[in-house]
Amino acid sequence: MHQELNSVEAFSQYLQDLPEEDAAARAAAQERNGQLTKPPGALGRLEDLAAWYCAWRGDAKPEIAKPQVIVFAGNHGVTAQGISAFPADVTVQMVANFEAGGAAINQLAKAFGAKMDVHALELDRPTADFTQGPAMDEAEFLAALKTGWEAVDPEADLLVVGEMGIGNTTAAAAMALALFGGEAGDWTGRGTGVSDEALQLKAEVVARAVAANAGCGTDGLEVLRCLGGREIAAMAGAMVRARVLRIPMILDGFICTAAGACLEAARKGALDHAVAGHVSAEAAHPALLARLGKEPLLAMGMRLGEGSGAALAMGVLKGAVACHSGMATFAEAGVSGG
Amino acid sequence: MHQELNSVEAFSQYLQDLPEEDAAARAAAQERNGQLTKPPGALGRLEDLAAWYCAWRGDAKPEIAKPQVIVFAGNHGVTAQGISAFPADVTVQMVANFEAGGAAINQLAKAFGAKMDVHALELDRPTADFTQGPAMDEAEFLAALKTGWEAVDPEADLLVVGEMGIGNTTAAAAMALALFGGEAGDWTGRGTGVSDEALQLKAEVVARAVAANAGCGTDGLEVLRCLGGREIAAMAGAMVRARVLRIPMILDGFICTAAGACLEAARKGALDHAVAGHVSAEAAHPALLARLGKEPLLAMGMRLGEGSGAALAMGVLKGAVACHSGMATFAEAGVSGG
Repeated sequence: MHQELNSVEAFSQYLQDLPEEDAAARAAAQERNGQLTKPPGALGRLEDLAAWYCAWRGDAKPEIAKPQVIVFAGNHGVTAQGISAFPADVTVQMVANFEAGGAAINQLAKAFGAKMDVHALELDRPTADFTQGPAMDEAEFLAALKTGWEAVDPEADLLVVGEMGIGNTTAAAAMALALFGGEAGDWTGRGTGVSDEALQLKAEVVARAVAANAGCGTDGLEVLRCLGGREIAAMAGAMVRARVLRIPMILDGFICTAAGACLEAARKGALDHAVAGHVSAEAAHPALLARLGKEPLLAMGMRLGEGSGAALAMGVLKGAVACHSGMATFAEAGVSGG
Repeated sequence: MHQELNSVEAFSQYLQDLPEEDAAARAAAQERNGQLTKPPGALGRLEDLAAWYCAWRGDAKPEIAKPQVIVFAGNHGVTAQGISAFPADVTVQMVANFEAGGAAINQLAKAFGAKMDVHALELDRPTADFTQGPAMDEAEFLAALKTGWEAVDPEADLLVVGEMGIGNTTAAAAMALALFGGEAGDWTGRGTGVSDEALQLKAEVVARAVAANAGCGTDGLEVLRCLGGREIAAMAGAMVRARVLRIPMILDGFICTAAGACLEAARKGALDHAVAGHVSAEAAHPALLARLGKEPLLAMGMRLGEGSGAALAMGVLKGAVACHSGMATFAEAGVSGG
């Protein structure tokens, strides 16, 4: 499908015109579910997951055969404020690791039969330090959205987007503070492992970032442009493209969820084609998921990013859909109780 | 490996002489974990799972290549007391469904690359009604243990045992009451979906069963013989064989956990080679897991049995081990921070 993205306005328009789930497919899936050889409801949340997947695919008996994992990487000017435990050159080193197949996300993508793509977004040109003004100008923002938009394989039947970017939990905390208010400390966590002292500094940086970009208000796309980063905007671009293509998604951790929260702020229901893969160890992730009304599938205390929590949750969703589409009905199996 | 099981005494002896985890393999796995390209601890519980798996396999860099799922089926004399929402002939029908590949567990085994075996244990000869005395005599008990013992593939590298048996949540509740005390109602749940009225009756039956077999005390193997069932004893037999073979296990729901609880009562630490795959919707499963000190991997509200919750959790464990054994080290990848 050719769906071009030539302006931020066009992106905003796609967001307003999102397709909705296929109610007939959901109804047919639910009817099928009632005939499967198990007591009603005995697969618990797997049944809801399967019905949701069917509804988005428009198919009462679908398969998950072509999952795609995309990792976006970006660098952040805000690292100049000393908010990270790792130096920014780790981003480019980890991109090489993704490309060589050595990172956690490579193993998880492989374990669940997903193809994995990596997009590094101008790593040698970090976004502007958002404590001084917007992270990206409109052209930079569009380029990042477009990278995400075009990265989605139209043939994929499940999407996970992940990120790598030293400093990006600071960006995500700032986005959450701008969208949902409260205190900077409510949204600021330890990221990859900052100390108590650094955590205090990080919260101050988050507060300054939001103050410096107060003009965004709670406009989701403006928050994403001014307080996000290239990899975060790319995730948002991929999320909307997936929706347009009716590809269901699994959300990853705090940064991915913050990207989604900007879309949801811009258009209520923008994440209806997504489930929350996990709740991470990042302190504010539970609160952020709660704001979006998303119940995580897994709670493993992960805090790696890369899409790793969502990739792990692909196993749960694949299991749910495999049961739904593969089980015999009472009539087919000659089992009493249908 | 030839490990014969010719008497209940021999089983009891195996249970006393269980092998322990390989401390050197755990230490080597932990050292490797510290060198992998991620911040320390960033994979959360996946790191603990991988270390545990390595310790039991005696291998610091293992693979999960040959998981086995075994479903045991049995019938229960206690169904004469009217404690089930389904008739006992559903057991034999479901065995046919397992054999034809149409049940939930078939789909999950396939989704996670496990081979699946089904053992129906004398379905035309239900155990005795344990409200009147022991469910099995010693010969019947041994035969059931042995079925489980011999069902384990010595080449397997991960084991899930599941069950099918109309009436077996009643047996599991009686076993838990005998082992842990309290009120019958504390351990009695809705199984495959009994009504409020039937739930009250079921708790009364559980209380009567324990009273009728008071001679068992809290002797784990006696509780298993007198209040269990053939499929439940077979699960226990398979669990001990897996331990002898150093095959790590994932526990399933309430019935599987009750089988394990008998082993743990007979020999503290008997389930150290097992993790809890999920917490089911059966009301007393959380309390039973807590008694065993097991934290479930998943909470999907499942209540199907068959090994389905544990089979779903294979995905999580496979992901954990894939990360541990497949990731590059800092040195290999040239990433800063190792």
